[in-house]
Parts: sequence; C-alpha cells; structure tokens
Amino acid sequence: MLGLKSASSDRWLDQVTRSLSDVLIDHAHCEKKAAATAMNLIVSYVENESLCRAMAEIVREELEHFELVLDLLKRRGIRLCRLKPGRYGRELHQHVRPQEPHRAVDRLLIAGLIEARSCERFSQLRDHVNDPELAQFYGGLFEAEARHHATYVRLAQDYSEARLVRQRLEELAIVEAQIIEVGDPLPRMHS
Amino acid sequence: MLGLKSASSDRWLDQVTRSLSDVLIDHAHCEKKAAATAMNLIVSYVENESLCRAMAEIVREELEHFELVLDLLKRRGIRLCRLKPGRYGRELHQHVRPQEPHRAVDRLLIAGLIEARSCERFSQLRDHVNDPELAQFYGGLFEAEARHHATYVRLAQDYSEARLVRQRLEELAIVEAQIIEVGDPLPRMHS
Repeated sequence: MLGLKSASSDRWLDQVTRSLSDVLIDHAHCEKKAAATAMNLIVSYVENESLCRAMAEIVREELEHFELVLDLLKRRGIRLCRLKPGRYGRELHQHVRPQEPHRAVDRLLIAGLIEARSCERFSQLRDHVNDPELAQFYGGLFEAEARHHATYVRLAQDYSEARLVRQRLEELAIVEAQIIEVGDPLPRMHS
Repeated sequence: MLGLKSASSDRWLDQVTRSLSDVLIDHAHCEKKAAATAMNLIVSYVENESLCRAMAEIVREELEHFELVLDLLKRRGIRLCRLKPGRYGRELHQHVRPQEPHRAVDRLLIAGLIEARSCERFSQLRDHVNDPELAQFYGGLFEAEARHHATYVRLAQDYSEARLVRQRLEELAIVEAQIIEVGDPLPRMHS
C-alpha cells in the first residue's frame, strides 16, 4: 500500500485492543505532529511557493483531524495527556541526510511515509476494530492521508530528479518497514 | 489602541514608503511566524483543550493571510526571499520568564502584543498608504488581528489570575513601546 514494504501485523492490532485509550491519545499527538511538520517545512522552504501552499493546506487538514480526535476523546471521557514518544518518528528521522537539497528530499519523503503508514493503520482499524464509531472515524480519515502521501512525494521532486526520489523512497520505505517490524512495547499509532 | 502604549510614528511610514517591497516581504514572514507561534503553543500546552482549539483557529487564519500576501507579492512581481529578522520579535521574547506558569503567560501576552501592533500598523497603512489595493488589503486584515489579541489575553488567564495578567500586560506593553520607539534601520512590519 502506497509504497510501504510491509502490512501491519496482528501484534499491533493486539496492542490496540489492549491499550485503546493510549493509542487514541497518541493519535491526537500524531495529528498535532503532522500539522507541526508541515508548518516546519513552510518555515524551512519559504521561498518555494507551491510547497508553502500545499503545506498550508496540509496544516489545515491535520488540525481539523486533531480537533476531531479531541472531540472523540471528550465523548469517551479520555483526557489528552502527554505520552512518552514511541521510537518510530525518532528512528525514521535519524535517516535524514544533513546537507541540502538531500535534507529537503528526506524530510518530505519521511513525512510521506508516515502519512502512508497512518493510512495503512487507519484502514486496519476501520476493518478490524470492534467499535462502529471508531471504524467509521478511521474510514473517514483514510483518504486524506493517502492524498498527503502523494503531495509529499511530488514536492520531493522539487529538490531532486524523479528517478532519484523514487530510489530514495525505496530505501526509506525499507528502513520504515524494519522499524515497524521491530515494533515498540509502548502502544502507539505507529508501534 | 488595544492596550499599546504608543502609536506608530511618521518615521515608520517613511520607511514603508521608501522600502515598500521589503515591508511586504516581511509581512509574509510575519504571517508565517504568527501561524508558527500558535502551532508552537499547541505543542507546548496540548493538555489545555480550549487553548488548542483557539490556536488551531488562529493557525488557520494566519495561514490564510500568509497565502493572501503570497498572492499580493505575485501580482506585484515581488519574489518572497529570506530577510534578516528585525530586532522587534527577538527583543520582546527576551522578556519571557523561564518558569511555568509565568512562561505561558508571557508567551501568550507577547503574542497578543504583536497582534495588537500588527493591528495598529495595518490601520496606519490603510489610512496613509497611497495605494488603493494595499489600503483595502490592510483594512481587511485589521479585524482578525484585534480578535487574536483578545484571544491571547483571555488564554493567559488560564495560567494566572486576571489581575496579575493585566499587570503583566501593562509591563510588557511598556517594553513593547520602548522597542518600537527605538525603531530599526531594517524596514520591517514592526520596525
């Protein structure tokens, strides 16, 4: 799915079942981080007008999703608290090459891969979670994540030729699948 | 106006007249920074739901303004480049007290003062700039800045009692007016 090198295992669905509240709280943090990531890309690459406009759109959508998750938490009486971050984002970002324009390519492609994994996990939740409200909720978020993935991959081509972007996306997708394969004892959206 | 301790002088309007392109480019950066500031406040105070919702709304509005300034720059054939930052924001932020909850109060009040000064400067531009498109543009942005100012001052009261918030706002407004009084040789929205 969307260039990902693995599907989520039952291990993760078991984690969700055992620790649903934590995963929902983490989901709020994920939407917040997705908005902040797009904002940081505007700050870093403000001279790139088409990037700025696409990122502004993504910030708006991720903040809408953030507020939808706040609504969901409220309906379920779950308080949004801080959580110890999982290893997924941290380990992925260790693979950002420091020099521009490689740095831009990697930041965009990693953002795109995180969107792809969210998309894959939302589809798993939609199909497997025994909770009609959540199934509908995650079905509704699915499409935006797939669209954001495509936007990030397209924008990476402003900073490197298409062939090299595809090659780098392959490399990073392998890294991403390895991180997911190892998993995380903390129950998270990307554990 | 909005608790500010001074009105902008002719010195600033002269700077705008002499270096209009720089001020317009700086305005794009200001809207971007205003959006990023509100986003950072979500990240810092994510447990405060009403703050998160108010900041999400401000992020959306500031990004809309950012895109309106991008449109304006494009119509005028001005390229959005990086600018050396003026001293205004940097000097104001030196007055943020490091310890919570004072830090929250100060970050919110300083964001509110920056909105108030933007509001005051937009009204000056609306009334004094000899350019109908710009006069209309700045007249249109005026109301949002005043509203954001009120939101920031209200949210500061989540972190300190109303009397102390008013007192701290007075102190910071005096500092702000001093920074504006000294001015900046760089032509900026807040020089």
